[in-house]
Amino acid sequence: PIKTQPAGQAAQIGKDGYRHFMEKELHEHPAAIGQTLANLTDQATQSFKLPALPLDLATLPRITISACGSAYYAGLVGRYWLESLARLPVDIDVASELRYRQPHQPDRGLALLISQSGETADTLGVLRYLKDHDQAILSILNVDHSTMGRDSDAVIPTLAGPEISVASTKAFTAQLAVLGALAITVAQARGAIDAKRAAELTKALQAVPHKAVEILGGEAGVQAMAKVVAEARDVLFLGRGVCMPIAQEGALKLKEITYIHAEAYPAGELKHGPISLIDKTVPVVAIAPSTILFDKVISNLQEAKARGGRILAFTDKAGAAQLKGVAEHMVVLPDSDPFTAPLLYAIAVQMLAYEVALLKGTDVDQPRNLAKSVTVE
Amino acid sequence: PIKTQPAGQAAQIGKDGYRHFMEKELHEHPAAIGQTLANLTDQATQSFKLPALPLDLATLPRITISACGSAYYAGLVGRYWLESLARLPVDIDVASELRYRQPHQPDRGLALLISQSGETADTLGVLRYLKDHDQAILSILNVDHSTMGRDSDAVIPTLAGPEISVASTKAFTAQLAVLGALAITVAQARGAIDAKRAAELTKALQAVPHKAVEILGGEAGVQAMAKVVAEARDVLFLGRGVCMPIAQEGALKLKEITYIHAEAYPAGELKHGPISLIDKTVPVVAIAPSTILFDKVISNLQEAKARGGRILAFTDKAGAAQLKGVAEHMVVLPDSDPFTAPLLYAIAVQMLAYEVALLKGTDVDQPRNLAKSVTVE
Repeated sequence: PIKTQPAGQAAQIGKDGYRHFMEKELHEHPAAIGQTLANLTDQATQSFKLPALPLDLATLPRITISACGSAYYAGLVGRYWLESLARLPVDIDVASELRYRQPHQPDRGLALLISQSGETADTLGVLRYLKDHDQAILSILNVDHSTMGRDSDAVIPTLAGPEISVASTKAFTAQLAVLGALAITVAQARGAIDAKRAAELTKALQAVPHKAVEILGGEAGVQAMAKVVAEARDVLFLGRGVCMPIAQEGALKLKEITYIHAEAYPAGELKHGPISLIDKTVPVVAIAPSTILFDKVISNLQEAKARGGRILAFTDKAGAAQLKGVAEHMVVLPDSDPFTAPLLYAIAVQMLAYEVALLKGTDVDQPRNLAKSVTVE
Repeated sequence: PIKTQPAGQAAQIGKDGYRHFMEKELHEHPAAIGQTLANLTDQATQSFKLPALPLDLATLPRITISACGSAYYAGLVGRYWLESLARLPVDIDVASELRYRQPHQPDRGLALLISQSGETADTLGVLRYLKDHDQAILSILNVDHSTMGRDSDAVIPTLAGPEISVASTKAFTAQLAVLGALAITVAQARGAIDAKRAAELTKALQAVPHKAVEILGGEAGVQAMAKVVAEARDVLFLGRGVCMPIAQEGALKLKEITYIHAEAYPAGELKHGPISLIDKTVPVVAIAPSTILFDKVISNLQEAKARGGRILAFTDKAGAAQLKGVAEHMVVLPDSDPFTAPLLYAIAVQMLAYEVALLKGTDVDQPRNLAKSVTVE
């Protein structure tokens, strides 16, 4: 049976020798992803087995996804996966917009909502709006016994454990792990991938905790990049395809805990305006595994470099070879199936934000102006 | 018959006494909108009459919209209008992403593409991709005899005239004018609004050129706001609903010609992260007509103010009364039907960018790093 987890009792949780809760929670990525996936894995077949869902995803014509902040970026990755792998069309919007935009909802459709706390007011508002419009609700939640959990038709839990740092880390990758398992399951149910491909993707996802340990051990490379970012006036994060939401996560995390204004752009949009911002004080951080539209990303980075931009890149071994001469600093991540890139690169961009915050001396765990879960609209 | 216009002969066009092409073209908003609408208006009935479209929008289940840069923001406004007014579900993405994301396309569906030049490489790429996937193509273009025009099944022209300034102004509002006329026509064809409401909305849209003149005469108020913005380290633009794309347009225009890093957020997302950026050096510019989710926007602005943010607002008379004590500077726009707010507020945010550029002394018409039409991918 699929377990859920008790609400965290923050007061009793210590930092276990880490300098900040955020550092501790970064190091809990492998466990959070691993536990979340193990909880969804049938031990006999080693394939994913999800809780009973309120609708048959094999025959569903569309699905709506909504969330706020980082959870919304997880939803965007989920959209890419569900569309490209399972050929399931997805409508997605931030909760505060979707709720008042009131787009057409299909008869007896399904909505997928994502929240760490299960108490996010905007997401709860959209949940109620969608329920009132005849949508079944599937939620991905980290805290059991939450208001959203009670009001959902089904919940797939993330087992990330209590997250104390205001800026989300492991809860985000645990959400991605659930979405990955969901995309594989739905793709197979819809006949979009066969059992062999499903087994390959499942194995790739299950290998992420191991690779996450390797990434967390690569602090030195991230620290070198952090020195450049810490001196930047502003930063642009670029990604394409399924890595675009990871650029957004990187930019948001940097904003949240270092107060450096970072903004994410789809790399192809750079030349349609934001490239005018670029000079040597505004570096560009690329989320660039060699496998995802890499030639296009390189050419976008060359444009930025030609305008005096300093290029920093998260890439893999093959990518690093090609980015020599373009990127000034690179963080080289382990090779992986392109499917799992969002999880690996998410960890790396969160580490970057953390290292920059250390250099800036900001309050990592309690950044100014922010609350952990936003329970007002 | 609906006219199209000849390609602009830039070399022969002067500034007519204005300091920059951008200033001249800002003052051509009324004419650009007026001519574009007049060209689509049946003189006998004073209702809109569009060119023959490649598919029956009355029975179409969905539509795909794509574009780049400002034209994409026009598309986002179009999505709000088509969804809320005509109850026509819309899928939208920037061209460089949609093309490679390859989402499912409906059998014999319709795609709406928007480009000033008709030569934008990314948008042309998406046009060809969508054609290959059995989609009819309707384009909104400002330049006749363009590659996109040739490859489209139908074109609705904007009659904005040649646009020389790299940063788009009047071509953007002319695109909105076409989208507004399209939304009204489609809404009536789908039975979502009756003839009386269609006539009201048509009249409201036709009143925009007159109100645009009034807005252009309000330079002094914009100049006062520009002084605050010119000294800002960075700027956040906020909007909700149909005004969110106008916040995006305001942020992009400021980036493009003043090199100030401005970013747009849906106002409801502020508290999910970006609010940590806010201090007295990072003002917040709200696009806040009193008619569009105004109470929600005020409460978002109060949160920003409580964190030390300086609040600047574009609003109307009723909004100004309520924002007293919250906003430090306001630009008060003429009252209008909420439907036409995107056009009016677009002009105002473009004027702001222009005035800030004058204060900063940047090259308004030829901002660094940018080309007028991006004919490479």
